[in-house]
Parts: sequence; C-alpha cells; structure tokens
Amino acid sequence: MLTVYSPDHIKHHPKGELYAGEFVTPFEMPRRMDIILGRLAETGLDEVVAPEDHGMAPLRRIHENDFLEFLETCWDQWVAAGYSHEVVPSVWPARRMQQHRRPEDIDGKVGYYSLAAETAICSGTWEAARASANVALTARKAIAEGCDSAFALCRPPGHHAAADLYGGYCFLNNAAIAAQAFLDDGAQRVAILDVDFHHGNGTQDIFFQRDDVLFLSLHGDPRQAFPSFLGYEDETGAGRGEGFNGNFPLPPGTNYGEWGRALEIACQRIADYGPDAVVISLGVDTFKEDPISFFKLESDDYRRYGSLLAGLNKPTLFVMEGGYAVEAIGLNTVNVLQGFLDR
Amino acid sequence: MLTVYSPDHIKHHPKGELYAGEFVTPFEMPRRMDIILGRLAETGLDEVVAPEDHGMAPLRRIHENDFLEFLETCWDQWVAAGYSHEVVPSVWPARRMQQHRRPEDIDGKVGYYSLAAETAICSGTWEAARASANVALTARKAIAEGCDSAFALCRPPGHHAAADLYGGYCFLNNAAIAAQAFLDDGAQRVAILDVDFHHGNGTQDIFFQRDDVLFLSLHGDPRQAFPSFLGYEDETGAGRGEGFNGNFPLPPGTNYGEWGRALEIACQRIADYGPDAVVISLGVDTFKEDPISFFKLESDDYRRYGSLLAGLNKPTLFVMEGGYAVEAIGLNTVNVLQGFLDR
Repeated sequence: MLTVYSPDHIKHHPKGELYAGEFVTPFEMPRRMDIILGRLAETGLDEVVAPEDHGMAPLRRIHENDFLEFLETCWDQWVAAGYSHEVVPSVWPARRMQQHRRPEDIDGKVGYYSLAAETAICSGTWEAARASANVALTARKAIAEGCDSAFALCRPPGHHAAADLYGGYCFLNNAAIAAQAFLDDGAQRVAILDVDFHHGNGTQDIFFQRDDVLFLSLHGDPRQAFPSFLGYEDETGAGRGEGFNGNFPLPPGTNYGEWGRALEIACQRIADYGPDAVVISLGVDTFKEDPISFFKLESDDYRRYGSLLAGLNKPTLFVMEGGYAVEAIGLNTVNVLQGFLDR
Repeated sequence: MLTVYSPDHIKHHPKGELYAGEFVTPFEMPRRMDIILGRLAETGLDEVVAPEDHGMAPLRRIHENDFLEFLETCWDQWVAAGYSHEVVPSVWPARRMQQHRRPEDIDGKVGYYSLAAETAICSGTWEAARASANVALTARKAIAEGCDSAFALCRPPGHHAAADLYGGYCFLNNAAIAAQAFLDDGAQRVAILDVDFHHGNGTQDIFFQRDDVLFLSLHGDPRQAFPSFLGYEDETGAGRGEGFNGNFPLPPGTNYGEWGRALEIACQRIADYGPDAVVISLGVDTFKEDPISFFKLESDDYRRYGSLLAGLNKPTLFVMEGGYAVEAIGLNTVNVLQGFLDR
C-alpha cells in the first residue's frame, strides 16, 4: 500500500496543550509520525511518497474562505497584537450570544473560529495543515489513478475541523477534503468511516445535509468524552442528508467485542450504501493504553478490523487522525493496514 | 454612603489567568478590594458593614438551578477527576454543535457553563461568589430600608455571568440578583446602567425579554473588545423586552467627551423610563491606564459622572464590577461615589 507523507508536519509543533487547567506537552506530537514511519519500514510497507501541491481549490470546496484566510494569517495577527506565546482562544460565542458576528480583533477571531482551547496555533501551523491536506489529496489521487488503497499519513489530523472551526488538534478536514475530491472527480457516493476514538464532529457537520457522503463514526460517548457537544446517536442527518449520518457512541471500557459489533453494523450500512470509494478516518486512540481515551482495544484487534474493512471491497483511502499512546501508534496503525492487505 | 463588603472574596484567588496564550497573574486580583477600602477610609466614606446571608432563593431568581449546582460542586468534581490545577475550560459548544446537551464529565460541564477561559475556578470560588451576591443583596436591602444610595463592594464581579454561564471573572450576576430583589420587594421597574468598560452581556441576556428591567450599557465595541459576541447596537431587546435594552459600543481611544455624551443619553432614557431604583454596574476599567481596556477616562471624570448619576434622583445601588489599573482603582471608584454624594 502506498503511503503519502510530508515532513512539513513538523512546522506545527506547539509547545503547550491546555489540559486539566495547565499547559502540558501536547499529546498530539510530531514523534507520532516517526513511530508510524518506523513501523511501516519494519513491515516492508515502505513505499512512501511526498505529496503534490493541489492548491487552494480543493480546500475551498470544504472550508469557508474567511476561515482559510484566518488560519493563514492568524499567527501574524497574533504577533502584531503584541503577543509572543502560542495562540489559544479565551472567549467564544456561548449560548444566546452572537454566533455569527465576526470580531475584528485577533482574540475575538480566534474564539470565533475555534471549538476547543487545547489546540495551539504556532508560526508554522498553516503550512503544516496545508501539507497535511495535500497528503490526503495525493493519496486520494493515487486511488483515482488505480490503486486499490492508499494511506495518507496526515499530521495535523482533520476530523474535528468543520467548515469554519478548528480544534481537537485539527485545522483542515483532510478526510472531508479527500471525499469531496472523489466526488468532484466523478464519484457518485463516498462513505467516510471514522474509527478514531473521538467523534468526527467536523466531518459530520460538513456533510450533515448531504446524501452523497455517508458519514459513520464509532466513538467515545460525547456525554463523557471530547468533543462533548456532537456525536449523539440521534444525529442522523438533516434535509437531503437525513439517514446519511450515523453515530455509534460507546461507553468507557468498551473492548473489541462491543466495538467490533458496532463496526460490523457500520460496514453493513456502507455496503448497503454502495459507495464508489471509502475513506477511513483512522485514529488508533481506541487503544487500551491511550492516555486521553477510554476504549480497550488490543494491538491484535487493529489487524482484525483492518481485515473487516477489506471485506467492503471498495477503493479505500486511509487518512490518519488521532492516537496518543505514541510508542504503540506504529504497531496499531500499521496493523490496520496489514489486516486490510492480508485478507 | 453605606458600603457593604465581605472579606470572603479572598477565597477566590486563582493563581493564573489565561491571557495571550499563557497563564499570567490574574488582572482581577484580591488587592483591588484593599485599594478601594483604603480610599474609602481616606475619604471618610468609612461606614463599611458585612453582608447578611440571604440564602439561595434570590440567586435562583436569576440563575438556573443546574448552573448553581455546577458552581457549587465544580471544584470537587474537578479534583475527583484527578486534576490538581485550577479549572479552565478547554472545549465548548461551538456553532452548530449541541448547545443544550449537558455532558456528564467535568471537562464537558465546564465547557457547557462557560463563555470564556480566562476565569479560573479554584477551591473557594463558590463561597466567594456567594458572599459577593450577599454583598449586593445586603446593600440593596439598605436602600429598601431607607438609604438613598449604597455601595456593594462586590468581588468577584458579576455582569458577564448569565443565567447559566460564567466567565469574564464573573460567576453570579450580583447586579441582576439585586435588581430582581428590588422587583420582588415591590418595585415596578428597575434600571441597570452598566458603565464598566466591558459589555454586561450576562445582565443583558438575563433581562433581554423583559420590560420591568431597563438595561443600558456603555462599553468597548465588541468588534474589538471582550466579550466579542454581545453588546452590539442593534440588540434592543426581544418580545415584551423590545426597546428595554440599549447598547452604546464605543471605539478605542474614547475619552470622557464621547463617553459622557453617551452617558447623558443613557441617563435621559432612564429618566424617561421612571424606574423605582437604579443599579449601577460600576466598573472603572474605562480609566486611561487600564491594562486590558481602551477608553481614556481621567480620574476627575469619575467624579463628574458620579454627579450626573445623582441627577437621576433615584434610589441608587452601586455594584462593583471591573477595573484593573489596580493602584488607581480606589481613587476612581470612590470619585464616582463622591461625585454622586457631592452634587
């Protein structure tokens, strides 16, 4: 399986993550990529190529222009305001406040475009996010050109980013951008299956009113897990999209038995949908040792479900999302790919 | 003029405020009270009494029960989650997320009930907030019992707190609680005039659909100032409250000339309204040296506008809100009271 990867991810290297009331070393760290690359090499899955630049057009298909301009200029505006630390939101449009007024000062803008405060923006964030989207787009193109599958080794991840919101370590929604590129390239229907521990709120939001993308997500129940305010079972889509969004919130302690049953239901729904391509938002923070999650998958389980995904018999794009048990992230991630290939 | 004050404010003493991407010593600090008390003593305005406990009932008239329970138990839940630093929100219900789902975990709850991240909660925050509300209620009662005016030296401040939201250094809306107490005690109409630099978003939100409270606020334009997402000129009230909310957003560099003209218009509106009592949300962060604000009032201007407020000839309750040029806060605050008394 082809892997697409860009070392430009390293340009996004915030020193701090707001966690439990203090700044800690970010759980979403550059070393995650090194560990995955190492495991790819160990297992012979070492066909790794650099992304091509796909320009801004495919990003504009998913994200608002104002949001993209904000991400591109945020750091400079922050510095121009006299600030020297990393960008962290401190005020946002809460209930009954003006949800659609766009402030002019950078503090207000940061709050307007964010959904969480753990995700700091630093000087190179925009370049890294752009490179990550290009990774997804390049891997997507490889499939369009005939590969059965490809692995977009994206960092920063993307599934929490909405059309006009960043947070949860995400800035550009790589999976959504790739899914849209499939459609713009002639596909009629695309399924996105999000197996990251956290609900893919951004992806859901982007496609919630559409029937040309089926979005399914298995995740920690938002009553108890980030992103807290989306990912409930009764969010089934709206308008033309009604019935094309499916959430599987699962409780603390969920092991592969329960998780795998939910996955089988999701796979059946995908099969019934008959997509031209499948995008997997691949997070491995479902692992039992993940420091910020509460599922209990074992390393062997990743191979098992990789095999299940292969059973869909569809062109399949894996897009890297989360996973913070860093030393195990290579094994678990590559196990999914191997399970997929070995079937 | 009687001052009501409680030393229990000191129980709210967060060590950090999230500002410009780092934790700094909070601008809203206990020393603010010492400086004001010192100036009261210097000027002979030294009749200072302790608050009575008015119980929970007057708080429940303004705030949701669930919110009050959250404030009371937040610290214990935070500690029970294994956290040891102060409480800071990290995720919130952004646009198009579930604005009314209440998460069960403490991280989700903190995000649900907050509108900003600068305001840390520590072990004694609830007790201090309760004492602050009692300060306002006790000063309010002194007026009901015959005083022409009284000064509620509240800390923490209150005007950013809504029925179910905290932030902007505020937890319980002292001014709103006192205004409601006037009404519950027989008043037909109460006017709240908010002269703090920041828009009193909480107070506006609480009374937005009511005509028995006229809320007027002079403040830094939310396009450029906290709280960013409320305080626009076209927010004039809704339903029965239409026409009973008035905002005067003013630009950076506003001096007393401009500010005073807005105040005169506001005072005329209050006179036309004919309230039984006036509550002044008294912030002195309009001062030219305030570190987080952008108006340019001079110390003598506070005396001038105190005199203007006396011209309303109404029972007047001053409720302390912001002001962060700490060494000048006593002079500026007491100048308002002296201007009021000297007229």
